[in-house]
Formats: sequence, structure tokens, C-alpha cells
Amino acid sequence: MAKATTSREFTREEVGLALRNPGMPLEGLRYDITPIEMHYLLVHFDIPSVDQETYEITVGGRVRTPLNLSLDELKARPAVTMPVMMECAGAGRAHLSPRPVSAPWRDEAIGCAEWTGTPLRPILEEAGLLDDAVEILFTGHDRGIDQGVEHNYERSLSLEDALREEVILAYGMNGRPLPARHGSPLRLVVPEWYGMASVKWLKEIKAVSEPFEGVQQALLYQYRQSEEDPGTPVTRKRPHALMAPPGIPDFFSRMRHVPAGRTLVEGRAWSGWGPVKRVEFSADGGHTWADATLGEPVGRYAWVRWSYEWDAREPGEYELCARATDSTGRTQPIDNDEAWNQGGYGVNGVQRVAVMVG
Amino acid sequence: MAKATTSREFTREEVGLALRNPGMPLEGLRYDITPIEMHYLLVHFDIPSVDQETYEITVGGRVRTPLNLSLDELKARPAVTMPVMMECAGAGRAHLSPRPVSAPWRDEAIGCAEWTGTPLRPILEEAGLLDDAVEILFTGHDRGIDQGVEHNYERSLSLEDALREEVILAYGMNGRPLPARHGSPLRLVVPEWYGMASVKWLKEIKAVSEPFEGVQQALLYQYRQSEEDPGTPVTRKRPHALMAPPGIPDFFSRMRHVPAGRTLVEGRAWSGWGPVKRVEFSADGGHTWADATLGEPVGRYAWVRWSYEWDAREPGEYELCARATDSTGRTQPIDNDEAWNQGGYGVNGVQRVAVMVG
Repeated sequence: MAKATTSREFTREEVGLALRNPGMPLEGLRYDITPIEMHYLLVHFDIPSVDQETYEITVGGRVRTPLNLSLDELKARPAVTMPVMMECAGAGRAHLSPRPVSAPWRDEAIGCAEWTGTPLRPILEEAGLLDDAVEILFTGHDRGIDQGVEHNYERSLSLEDALREEVILAYGMNGRPLPARHGSPLRLVVPEWYGMASVKWLKEIKAVSEPFEGVQQALLYQYRQSEEDPGTPVTRKRPHALMAPPGIPDFFSRMRHVPAGRTLVEGRAWSGWGPVKRVEFSADGGHTWADATLGEPVGRYAWVRWSYEWDAREPGEYELCARATDSTGRTQPIDNDEAWNQGGYGVNGVQRVAVMVG
Repeated sequence: MAKATTSREFTREEVGLALRNPGMPLEGLRYDITPIEMHYLLVHFDIPSVDQETYEITVGGRVRTPLNLSLDELKARPAVTMPVMMECAGAGRAHLSPRPVSAPWRDEAIGCAEWTGTPLRPILEEAGLLDDAVEILFTGHDRGIDQGVEHNYERSLSLEDALREEVILAYGMNGRPLPARHGSPLRLVVPEWYGMASVKWLKEIKAVSEPFEGVQQALLYQYRQSEEDPGTPVTRKRPHALMAPPGIPDFFSRMRHVPAGRTLVEGRAWSGWGPVKRVEFSADGGHTWADATLGEPVGRYAWVRWSYEWDAREPGEYELCARATDSTGRTQPIDNDEAWNQGGYGVNGVQRVAVMVG
């Protein structure tokens, strides 16, 4: 679990994680489909090198017929291509006070790529889950040490979640072979959930008869209010709206400069709990809100475009905000600290963008 | 110019720059050609959106015949494809003490892509440089504020440098159209030099009769020992060797863990001043050195592979180092602070990798 600090400054280790784990610059919100080189990444250990030619994924454990599938065999199976919005569970962590010390994400741990792969469910059905199987465990080729434990990155899904028809084994991204850094040759894609579920560089799929209690499942990626809190698992993405900051930036402070007058502010919104039904915009730090215009969703598991024509009449400094509400009524807290938890997961306070007009 | 701090912690703004500007994780040194999504990026302002269909580059100023060239016209000209190793001039800045406060690079501001484009020289010859032309100014579409001055990112080259045959206008990267984040649809590629010379999202090329004194030329990217120092321009890449850290990492500290015994340590080396002639390896923090084995260069303007079989017999903590020397005799300082300068440019002290054996 991450330690928390009240320091407003950042450690060398946090900066190291930021340099290794790129965010999507928010001007990238202009694209329906995020270009590969702009999609966020969180890689826990090293990017492994996996030979595509000899690659096989094993599907074993509590199944009747263990399978070994090569990349060609996977590609010969029914293929689906779909845009999936992905967000790191640690998004927003650096907004918290005290701040859990880990990858210091603000708002940019996002991307919406078009993934191509084959559905997992028919593969599990072909292998034949035995009656005592309770979860499916996905193990990556990436290996390292976290929380003092050496392990390959691995996470499980309940049978119900693993058998969702939209869960795929992906070998393509934006019409190209899966890039090395994004999990080549094969990764899991679990729509609606935060990114930690979408295990990259898949090595093994295993039906297990006991709930998986590994580091990345039971210790990390749990919502905990204190160290004693047993926690609840991090799963679906909370509602979140982000705008592409308008105007032009200052290199260092990233303060935005916008001419007075009408400015079309555009962004995207998403939720893993249900379709986004409303996006609101505020130009006064969240004191007053107005409804933004929603576009058509890019896809069932993607994000939706929104826009608001902001009339910035008076020169001066403004704080622009955006807030999403989904069909379940879930919305975003005004203050990130309302979403505070030990690991800094699912932090979805309203975005705040400082802008100088005039 | 960047302020310097003696703090060992980092500011929010530095972390913001790290999140926007991804490095190449050093395990990427395994690739001759860096995959697009792993190549470092330093983008001063926002990534602009430039329409390829209507795109034109203007070649004007002190020329006989101003030119407007569309992307199709550029692609119809003679094409060259070549691997070019690129490194940010700010690489190593975060190793300095006091630390200039800007993008907090350590070692990872690198990449070696295969660029496709058309040589600049014949285009300048076609436009016909007038006798009073002294420099060529390259202006990008990216606009913002730095050092209190609003400007498009722009830099000049002397006629001699602009007319080097290996300077190209690139529209392709690794066999694909230039990605948005890397300068689409057209960027300059200046081999041998640090990356700031390779202006992205080219808007205009202009022959000028006075030396360009803009922010990114005269204020920034100058080697200065003090604020009063008039400075000398940052130009060619200094010699630099980096290893892919061996073993497996700890998620947070990135400490490497390697089993006892023989480990093949591999890396790359480069210099913009001349071919790399020697790479040395040290397993004791730079007290004793041994020659590494050099491979064949990936190309005239690329990097060269090196390797060293390290025999880690005793368990314990080691500090692994690498050092390159080029054909001009230039080498790397043992201590980064020997390369200290106000802006934190060209900092090429030997790499140090902490490793736990056993």
C-alpha cells in the first residue's frame, strides 16, 4: 500500500514513475480515437520482450481441456474491433492531500483506443470450466517486486466478469499489431473497468478454485480509508469529464491564456457504471454550473464528446470546471479529497483549469 | 532561463512536465529502432492539430523564388529513410545539484527512430538563397508562452548547418505517417544535434538576413555558467552510453535485482561529434573500468550497441556504470555536476544503476 505525504513537493521516485508512465496530454481529447503514441500507460515493472513467432497463451487450471493457443490461432477465431476508453485507477492521485506516494497522476491517465481481439468467453467455454472454478487468473510476462513480494503482474476476474461478452484478448490497437509497450503480442481488455484489470503481455489464463489474493489484487487496487480497513475492490471507472484546456499554455506553469470573447470549450466524459447523461461546465471554480452539449458516444465502451460555448467577457483569471453524471446518478465530487483513499484510487473530483483571459 | 533549486524534491510543475513528456524506458535500448510509442518526446506547448489535406509549407524570406509545397509535393521529391538517434538537450538535468527547474529528465530522453523525408538542401537551392541570407529559420505551428514571451516554437540553423545533406523534412516515422505527437504532418530532422533543432509541426521555413535571437535560440538552449554568461549555443549531442538496467525492478524504487552469476549487460552509445570508439563498464561505481564490446552502428546517425558480460559473484549492492568515448576523444564526466550549466543542457555524466545481487 502507498504511504501518504502532506508535502506539496514530490519525491525522486514519483518523478521516476511519471517519466516512465506517460499521460495523454489533454489536447488529445480532440481525437475520437487516441493515437497510439498519446495513449496513457502504466507499466509496473519492465516492458517485457515477448517473441510473437513462438508465442502461445495457455488456458489451464480448473478446466476440462487445457488449451495452448498461438497468435495465429487466436487471429483465426472470431474477431471484434471496438473503441474502449481506458483510465488508470490511480488517476487523480496527485490531487489528494495527504497524497499517497505512487505514480503521481493528475488528470491525464486516459486514452480511448480501438482494440481488436477475440472474445474470451468462447475460449473459456471451449476449455470447459470445472464446477469448482470461481475466478479466472490472468498472468503477465512482466515481473518485478512490489510491496516486498516478487511476482509477475497478475489479476483475477470473477467468473461473471470474465464471461462478459465484451471482455477480449486483444492483439491489435488502432488497426495495427499491438505495440510492445501496450502488451504485445496479447493483452486482456476489460471494458468499463479501470486499467489495472486489462493485464498486458498475457502469459497464462488459469481457472482457479480459490479467490486470488496476490499483491495486485488483495493488497493494491483496494479502496481503503485506513490501513486497518479490509477494503473494497477497485473495479468500474467512476464518472469523469475532462476538457481540453482552451487557449495557449505557458511552458512551465501550464497556465492557459485565452482571448476575451466566445471560446468553444470541448472535452470528453465517461463512466464505467452507465452512460453519461449530463456534463456541466463552470467558469467560476464550481460555484455555478451550466449544462454542456453532449455528442454521440464514440462507442458503447468509449467516451462521449461534450462542448460548451463559454463567453469570457471580462479579462481576468478564471477557474474552469467540468463535471459528469451518469445514468445511475453517480457524479463527481467538487473536491478530490472527498474521494480520498489510502491508495489514491478512483479519484474523480471535478477538473479545474486555471485560465487567464485578455 | 531555468531557476535552480537545491531541493532534492520536485515541484508540481516539474511533475506536470514529466507527465506530459514521456521518456523511453531504458529496457527500450533492446531495440535497434525505437517503437513509436516508446520514443521520448519534449513538447513545449500544446500538440497542434494540423490538417494534412490542406497542409502547405512555405519557404520564403531572403530567397529569389518563394515556394509553397503541399505534402504530396514533398512526397514526390527524392525520399530518404534513415535511423537517427535523438536526445533531448535537457537529458540528465534532474541529476544536477543545484537542479535547474524545468523538464526533470534523468537518462531517458532518448530514442532512435527511422525517419523518412526529403532533403532540405535541394529545396533551399530551388528557392534560391539571396546573398544576404545568413540563417534559415524554422517555425512550428505550436504556440505558447515561455520566459514571458508569446511565440511559436522556432529555431534557426546557420546556412552551413541547414545545407548539410542529412538534414531532412520528415513526413514518416518507422514506416508510418508522422504521428500527431511527433510533428505531423512535417518536421525537421537534424541528425547529430540535440532534439531542440528538429522543429516539429513545421509551418514556415524562412531565410533571414540577421541571426535569429528568439526565446528558444538566444535565451534558452545556451550553455551558461551564470546568468551573466553570454553563453554558447547547444548544438551536437555529447557522447553518452546507457545500459538497459539488468534483472528485474522494484515498482517504486526501481532498484534492480539480479541473481548471482554471469549477466550480459547491454546498451547503446552515441555521440554527435564523431563515431563512438569505446564504451567502458564499471561494476563498482566508476572506480575501475573494463572495455565493453561494441556492435555495428545501426546507421551513420544512429546509436551503436554495446555489451559486457558481468560476473556478479558476490551477493550485495553494486553500482553499475557505463561511459562512452568518441573518435574526437570526447568522453563523459564521472560526475554529472562537472557538466553543470544554468539550463541543465547536455548533462552526460556516466549512468549509474543501483543493483542488488543475490
